Amino acid sequence: MDMEPAVSLDRIGALELFASLPAEALEPVRAAMRTARVEKDAVIFRQGDPVSRAYALASGSVRIVQGGADGGQAIVRFIAPGEMFGTVPLFTDHRFPADAVAVEPSTVLTWSEPQLLDLMTRYPAIAINLIRALGERMAQLQERVRELTTWRAEQRIAQAVLRLAAQSGRDGSRGTTIEIPLRRKDLAEFAGTTLHTASRTVAAWEKAGLLESRGQRLTIHDLEAIRRLAEGDED
Amino acid sequence: MDMEPAVSLDRIGALELFASLPAEALEPVRAAMRTARVEKDAVIFRQGDPVSRAYALASGSVRIVQGGADGGQAIVRFIAPGEMFGTVPLFTDHRFPADAVAVEPSTVLTWSEPQLLDLMTRYPAIAINLIRALGERMAQLQERVRELTTWRAEQRIAQAVLRLAAQSGRDGSRGTTIEIPLRRKDLAEFAGTTLHTASRTVAAWEKAGLLESRGQRLTIHDLEAIRRLAEGDED
Repeated sequence: MDMEPAVSLDRIGALELFASLPAEALEPVRAAMRTARVEKDAVIFRQGDPVSRAYALASGSVRIVQGGADGGQAIVRFIAPGEMFGTVPLFTDHRFPADAVAVEPSTVLTWSEPQLLDLMTRYPAIAINLIRALGERMAQLQERVRELTTWRAEQRIAQAVLRLAAQSGRDGSRGTTIEIPLRRKDLAEFAGTTLHTASRTVAAWEKAGLLESRGQRLTIHDLEAIRRLAEGDED
Repeated sequence: MDMEPAVSLDRIGALELFASLPAEALEPVRAAMRTARVEKDAVIFRQGDPVSRAYALASGSVRIVQGGADGGQAIVRFIAPGEMFGTVPLFTDHRFPADAVAVEPSTVLTWSEPQLLDLMTRYPAIAINLIRALGERMAQLQERVRELTTWRAEQRIAQAVLRLAAQSGRDGSRGTTIEIPLRRKDLAEFAGTTLHTASRTVAAWEKAGLLESRGQRLTIHDLEAIRRLAEGDED
């Protein structure tokens, strides 16, 4: 990781971990912070490694991938700018439950465990922010568990596209573009289906004009149609 | 819900939300607490209803069931004594993401939102406990997402049995008994498989002497064998 210039207080106050903090709290947050630039495909941390710092993403995107002893792997989540990641194990077993890999060149902010705990004790809003962020992710994971047990693959792929659009979509003249670069394999692992099914489904949607895929960017032309597909409407 | 006699400070200090609190903090926690007794099959809260209190289970067991607009439903989790539940939406959208149903007669403790926030601000250990509990559940959900995408049904049923044994197993002369009463349907929904597959699999394991099923209690005779099945060993 290379060092880079200081991040502004405004940008720090926009991180999900430090939102709604009193202005005077942002200075100690920045004083305790380390900033690092990582290249595309860099491994920020590895599943099983010991955890001693909290992470937040200032720019770029990161994929969180969990592998099993059996060789199977799933994309747990994509991280967009402003979001924290790798922070929860500081409160549990101090081991990363998954790999974090930079999807593109990214800027990563970190704080040591004692610094984070000290800041949380001084500013309870940080703990509340952390609980809120965990709560939202847990609700998403619960939804995914339900979808994996009851939905068809096509519905899950549509739902994965909607989630990514809500998380990192940018509206333009041609529709909503998902800013996170996505390989077909990523979409398949995120939706819990095979590469073959994900490729076939996206190709059919492209042909029908619902979305288009350029390089690794998906642009959705008809969000409403994708929403109906997620809900299982057949027409 | 009927009222019942006061819960001891020791029992309150053993709840996951209030573990490692200074002794003087337990008195205000109890002063703010309401205690209610619920019957088997009572609905403690309903998916979509507004949330205004935090919940913890003093005795009994509760199942958390999430349904979708499509009619599909999944058991998100079982709650054992000492565990909190229904508390996270206080920090997110203030709507219950799932139903909570008493599996057997149970004692439920609750605190109002302002009381919980006040206690958390006075005793940061409560926020840390909440983050730890959420972190552990999130890690479990991430595991389940991975298993649902990469494991066979039999492995997932074995893993569901292991999770329930770790959460509420009691060791006895005949093996480890899961204290939470379980219908086949519950096990199927928790493992993300069909009732047919869950019934067939458990019957085969009973025949092989790995476990036995009496009423709604599962007793595991050979935990090691169930562990090997979860890991996908064929022999």
